[in-house]
Amino acid sequence: MDLLKEKILQHSLVLSDEVLKVDSFLNHQIDPELMKNIGIEFANRFKNEGVTKVITLESSGIAPALFSALFLEVPLIFARKRKSLTMQDELLTCEVYSFTKQITSVISISKKYLNKSDKILIIDDFLANGQAALGLVELCKQAGAFVVGAGIVIEKSFQNGRDTLKEKGIRVESLAQIASLEDGKITFLN
Amino acid sequence: MDLLKEKILQHSLVLSDEVLKVDSFLNHQIDPELMKNIGIEFANRFKNEGVTKVITLESSGIAPALFSALFLEVPLIFARKRKSLTMQDELLTCEVYSFTKQITSVISISKKYLNKSDKILIIDDFLANGQAALGLVELCKQAGAFVVGAGIVIEKSFQNGRDTLKEKGIRVESLAQIASLEDGKITFLN
Repeated sequence: MDLLKEKILQHSLVLSDEVLKVDSFLNHQIDPELMKNIGIEFANRFKNEGVTKVITLESSGIAPALFSALFLEVPLIFARKRKSLTMQDELLTCEVYSFTKQITSVISISKKYLNKSDKILIIDDFLANGQAALGLVELCKQAGAFVVGAGIVIEKSFQNGRDTLKEKGIRVESLAQIASLEDGKITFLN
Repeated sequence: MDLLKEKILQHSLVLSDEVLKVDSFLNHQIDPELMKNIGIEFANRFKNEGVTKVITLESSGIAPALFSALFLEVPLIFARKRKSLTMQDELLTCEVYSFTKQITSVISISKKYLNKSDKILIIDDFLANGQAALGLVELCKQAGAFVVGAGIVIEKSFQNGRDTLKEKGIRVESLAQIASLEDGKITFLN
């Protein structure tokens, strides 16, 4: 997606060989028009899959996922990393390990919002080692829901997230694939 | 906003005299079309204020705030409750006490995204005691930015949030004002 790649080149910062900072348009400050275009792109790529719900993980996944859900005309569910005061229902839960933060967190979705008739599109802002996306796949599996694929805004293709998801049979669509961040330079895969 | 009130009547749950559960369309599962209409409504109410940025607090504020920012054609910034790995900049920070959770958390926005030329619209999903909104007002004050007002999706008018914000000179626009949740019944203010 050229619009996104241009934004990454112009407005992101390479913090290390592994960490790209995109908090000027995706992770902290958000460009709503770009998110709309991202939503249109994901909706277009998955429009023939019979998607019934989009799911993502709070907080950075919400913006791209919301527009994807809007254009697919389905609800969005965001998995929580912390338990909400009003979430007294039975929960689908899964532990997710973050390699970058080196912490394990428990993500959850209320059982009543996912069921075996659902066809789920997973949306997330980043794909690195794939642990967050795998956690969302696991929640779908617990509910018996079918995962039609994962839509990723920025894939760090030098990490193993894509392979990990593909081994599980998950279709991965990434809008920007980064081959390398070495020497402070952003190189796209294609 | 009639569409929202109908949704609240049909799809929310009264958990106690003080707690309304709206996780079927706002706080966990999200109705994107409703959020779009909420964004149009807020943009319309604040369109003559020269808003330069919309700010909110992760996570439940992001959806209504994103559409408000889209239709006002300005960026959205979401304040974080936890520090991000890539947030190495200087931060505006403020402690926010939650009466319902009985915990104090530190919210933050990077200094580089708020400055004294900004005219800020604050958007949040709920207004109860006003502590979250006051925290966002405080971050704006630290940056020297002007707050044009606060757009609230659901105001619990039996709590003192509106008065607290108005004492600070903040214009408050709420799309649904709940007068009472007593006896498991939702009563709107008007």
